[in-house]
Amino acid sequence: MHETPRNPRDLTGLDLDDILGTINAEVRQRFGEGRVADYIPSLADVPRDRFGIALALLDGSVHEAGNARERFSIQSISKVYTLTLALEAIGDELWKRVDREPSGDPFNSLIQLEHEKGIPRNPFMNAGALVTADVVLSGFDAPERTLLEFLRKRSGNPEVGTDEVVARSERESGYRNVALANFIRSFGNLHNDVQDVLDFYYLQCSLRMDCVDLARSVQYLANAGRCPVSGERVTSAEGTTRINSVMMTAGTYDAAGDFAFYVGLPAKSGVGGGIVAVVPHVMGLCVWSPGLDEKGNSLLGRYALHRFTRMTGLAVF
Amino acid sequence: MHETPRNPRDLTGLDLDDILGTINAEVRQRFGEGRVADYIPSLADVPRDRFGIALALLDGSVHEAGNARERFSIQSISKVYTLTLALEAIGDELWKRVDREPSGDPFNSLIQLEHEKGIPRNPFMNAGALVTADVVLSGFDAPERTLLEFLRKRSGNPEVGTDEVVARSERESGYRNVALANFIRSFGNLHNDVQDVLDFYYLQCSLRMDCVDLARSVQYLANAGRCPVSGERVTSAEGTTRINSVMMTAGTYDAAGDFAFYVGLPAKSGVGGGIVAVVPHVMGLCVWSPGLDEKGNSLLGRYALHRFTRMTGLAVF
Amino acid sequence: MHETPRNPRDLTGLDLDDILGTINAEVRQRFGEGRVADYIPSLADVPRDRFGIALALLDGSVHEAGNARERFSIQSISKVYTLTLALEAIGDELWKRVDREPSGDPFNSLIQLEHEKGIPRNPFMNAGALVTADVVLSGFDAPERTLLEFLRKRSGNPEVGTDEVVARSERESGYRNVALANFIRSFGNLHNDVQDVLDFYYLQCSLRMDCVDLARSVQYLANAGRCPVSGERVTSAEGTTRINSVMMTAGTYDAAGDFAFYVGLPAKSGVGGGIVAVVPHVMGLCVWSPGLDEKGNSLLGRYALHRFTRMTGLAVF
Amino acid sequence: MHETPRNPRDLTGLDLDDILGTINAEVRQRFGEGRVADYIPSLADVPRDRFGIALALLDGSVHEAGNARERFSIQSISKVYTLTLALEAIGDELWKRVDREPSGDPFNSLIQLEHEKGIPRNPFMNAGALVTADVVLSGFDAPERTLLEFLRKRSGNPEVGTDEVVARSERESGYRNVALANFIRSFGNLHNDVQDVLDFYYLQCSLRMDCVDLARSVQYLANAGRCPVSGERVTSAEGTTRINSVMMTAGTYDAAGDFAFYVGLPAKSGVGGGIVAVVPHVMGLCVWSPGLDEKGNSLLGRYALHRFTRMTGLAVF
Repeated sequence: MHETPRNPRDLTGLDLDDILGTINAEVRQRFGEGRVADYIPSLADVPRDRFGIALALLDGSVHEAGNARERFSIQSISKVYTLTLALEAIGDELWKRVDREPSGDPFNSLIQLEHEKGIPRNPFMNAGALVTADVVLSGFDAPERTLLEFLRKRSGNPEVGTDEVVARSERESGYRNVALANFIRSFGNLHNDVQDVLDFYYLQCSLRMDCVDLARSVQYLANAGRCPVSGERVTSAEGTTRINSVMMTAGTYDAAGDFAFYVGLPAKSGVGGGIVAVVPHVMGLCVWSPGLDEKGNSLLGRYALHRFTRMTGLAVF
Repeated sequence: MHETPRNPRDLTGLDLDDILGTINAEVRQRFGEGRVADYIPSLADVPRDRFGIALALLDGSVHEAGNARERFSIQSISKVYTLTLALEAIGDELWKRVDREPSGDPFNSLIQLEHEKGIPRNPFMNAGALVTADVVLSGFDAPERTLLEFLRKRSGNPEVGTDEVVARSERESGYRNVALANFIRSFGNLHNDVQDVLDFYYLQCSLRMDCVDLARSVQYLANAGRCPVSGERVTSAEGTTRINSVMMTAGTYDAAGDFAFYVGLPAKSGVGGGIVAVVPHVMGLCVWSPGLDEKGNSLLGRYALHRFTRMTGLAVF
Repeated sequence: MHETPRNPRDLTGLDLDDILGTINAEVRQRFGEGRVADYIPSLADVPRDRFGIALALLDGSVHEAGNARERFSIQSISKVYTLTLALEAIGDELWKRVDREPSGDPFNSLIQLEHEKGIPRNPFMNAGALVTADVVLSGFDAPERTLLEFLRKRSGNPEVGTDEVVARSERESGYRNVALANFIRSFGNLHNDVQDVLDFYYLQCSLRMDCVDLARSVQYLANAGRCPVSGERVTSAEGTTRINSVMMTAGTYDAAGDFAFYVGLPAKSGVGGGIVAVVPHVMGLCVWSPGLDEKGNSLLGRYALHRFTRMTGLAVF
Repeated sequence: MHETPRNPRDLTGLDLDDILGTINAEVRQRFGEGRVADYIPSLADVPRDRFGIALALLDGSVHEAGNARERFSIQSISKVYTLTLALEAIGDELWKRVDREPSGDPFNSLIQLEHEKGIPRNPFMNAGALVTADVVLSGFDAPERTLLEFLRKRSGNPEVGTDEVVARSERESGYRNVALANFIRSFGNLHNDVQDVLDFYYLQCSLRMDCVDLARSVQYLANAGRCPVSGERVTSAEGTTRINSVMMTAGTYDAAGDFAFYVGLPAKSGVGGGIVAVVPHVMGLCVWSPGLDEKGNSLLGRYALHRFTRMTGLAVF
């Protein structure tokens, strides 16, 4: 019965373009708030006065406002897609190597890994994303191409690509990630060469996409795992629920509780300032604004999502 | 616009009594699984071959199956109600004394408290529930009576009461809670006498209610904060969203991620074997079966909720 | 052969009174440094311009300078004596309930207790001292009197007593100790009533003695466990070595490494500003000055001991 | 006055050869106890039925028994020498980058590093040894040769060398060390290339020496920092005290408290089964037996040192 959803939220009477216009105007008043990620120069250079929002409804329509067609570094948003690919590769075996629970705070990540014998708490922490990357590396003949093609297909944009400069910068400054990867490897929970895993991880983080691309790219998570255009199965219905629930409980760094309240949708953020979200059975969406709050989520993006769910009544709670 | 919800899930064509009957039959096949909480004798004595389920719809109808009219010790389910009362007492000031984020694992609770200067991660961890109890103690003239009357009103059952034997047992064996309370007190985050806070906490945990009582008692969380019978405002719409989101991300001990996937509803469990859950805009519900899984949640209760959301399509994801 | 020590350091040519006079003069130049413990009022009231030093040689002679006859609150120095009594009560069985290793830093005390199932790292951490107090409580019919008589005999001063005001203050403000005691109790590693253990612990910390008393009171630790006056065995030769080695590796809070270098003698400090030390085979000694350094050890006392071992060549390294 | 030591322990009447013979015979009865380090094959291959002991007195005499002329992998014993070289290179500046306190337990090492901003607790933990290696790398033009020459001079054996196979094995299996080094690097507390630091560290651990070499190599630590043969100053008197005190409080992994009691001398162990120790003002000594106890120290080596100090009365306590 699960395939016949009981909760197709009602959009009757909502003027989505008007709502996006209002949000866009409100957000632009607040440009300058937040702090741009600066751990690598190519991210630090992005101007803060940018905001885009895009909705990709399951009926095929797209609504957008602001800089919704400007590309940015998707960073950790990519973890949603590699998680999907890892589930394709080995199914529920994945959960023997990475857990599905919230992580508490960053402070604990290493001690948790030690305590839990190298099993990361969830696939969206860096540790979990490294294990996920390792699974993708083992599971596909040409993992980089597989990931690129996955995103080009999901977004319908054949020009989705990676940013070599960003990937290289990450590689040059990522001592923590190298530490993490070697630590996990010491527990036997990485099977590929540590540097290969890191290189794939830096590559996935360096993907550049815009809000419309990303809103489309998460539509399958609103559609029980199927592409709404082609009807192709991207992941199982159960896999979809799993991914959405991990987004809800662990998608926004240490602010998952706050997002569940303030936004009320499964969401995944990246330090490039993007956040994707899912209204189950209705749409994929994406916001982008480079200024981050102290938890590392887009400050104005978070506000925009809050306004959106409050104005539309589309939050899950 | 928030007051006009967009997600009133469709119940058309669902035979809820039939579904509950099926679940009840399935669960009874599995009696004997799980382990009854035995840290105090009065809990250990409860037989494992019990299962009840009750739905309290916003239209006033109640559906039930199994031992839905047998009372049990609600234990940590009470934290939902004291949280509601604490918000009534001091509003968002509460969040200066307790955070709203998932907690990671129990292993970290004390070190987190130390690290975070006595601010518990959320109101559903024991530490957070002690702070919440402290707020209720300060906020009402007759806190015990206030809590009892709250539950009698919410459940419509004037006979809701506490179990002195359970409260006394908890008091006699709760060294950890005494440790926790004194530790929080050392940070100045309890304002009342430590023993008074503990006594109130043991009292709230010792409340006895049945599935029907409890399903009705969480209806306001499905109804934007209003009692569906009297229309009385119990908590604000924002407060409701807050409570539901904390239930989703932290309501089931260390299994919140698993529950978000497997059940997909805001829920709060207790070691007495009860679990309340909320289908926003539709109903409050409650399951009960005393055998616990290794995370401390009712093993068969969790299964029943899973079956329920899968059979009805009412999960939020 | 152990009973015939090979390392009776040579005192030939040392004018101990001259050395103490020099140190006393140097220290008085620095009065005002350090910070007096202020967690209870009766400690905060002690003036900082006090310094005493006393040596009690095994030949019976005593050398002293400064305020060596002014009493102060011995606080954690008492842990040396309760450790001795606990070894008398149950011998090496004690080491099943408390370990003998350095503790790292205070930050870890609770997590270590959790990780190590309620076994404190050593008898000089508060947690370990509570277990030691519990052993003394079980091991003697009149533990308070036993402790008092032990110190009166060791010091030769029948007027050694406790300070009710200090003990009461500790009791009123010691939420952390209450937390710790209940936490240990939850692991079953306290056998007496928690409050009784705490009361005994506060009593031992409230003992008042002067430098001469204390220097004499540790002579048995310089004399293979025997009283140098009466020849009475206080503890075994092995027990003496054990106590000295715990003092060396864990006697000065988180500064054991620093003390081993800077002072080079087994030592035990208290927040009242006293520090006892042992020159094996030669003497017991004690310094006192109320101003503490950031680790909680007497700032000028530490300096005085450093000067003393550097001027005399009596450090063990 | 420090240069004229007051504690030249008396060797009169001790027949050191007889004592070593007794110990050697006792130890051989127990061959087979302990577990050989097996994390790299070249260590796992060493037979357990080996025991050597050597004393190098400041008067130039050497006493030995058993396999005192068989070389083994010195492993962490090398940390004593790189610490000496790091102090030569930058003096007390070293202590801004590494602390001098015991570390608590291994469980905490990463969380401590995080908490203490990348400053390892002491130079004998792996983290601290990596920082020390980094200082040596920066401080000498030809650091490998400097280290080799240091040990050839100290031991008087021009054939001291490294074991390429061991160094390579360590490099291939040392994921934890790579993790650690990158983690420290992320705090800015390694200045050289991470791989260069690791390579130097693996090289120092792969040094091969015998008991006589090693006993001679620590003589300067018994002689206030001077070579007893040439009179050359190896390190300052204060540096000597510092190194000895770090050996006492942190030289034997998590068993420093136990060693202080059971052996009572500054000592440094390695997983190759060697332990060096210092009797201040009297001798350097070394024991070797490959079987390790559960803390990673040579089980029979520890026993031999215990017997030695108990038979000679040369322990510092």
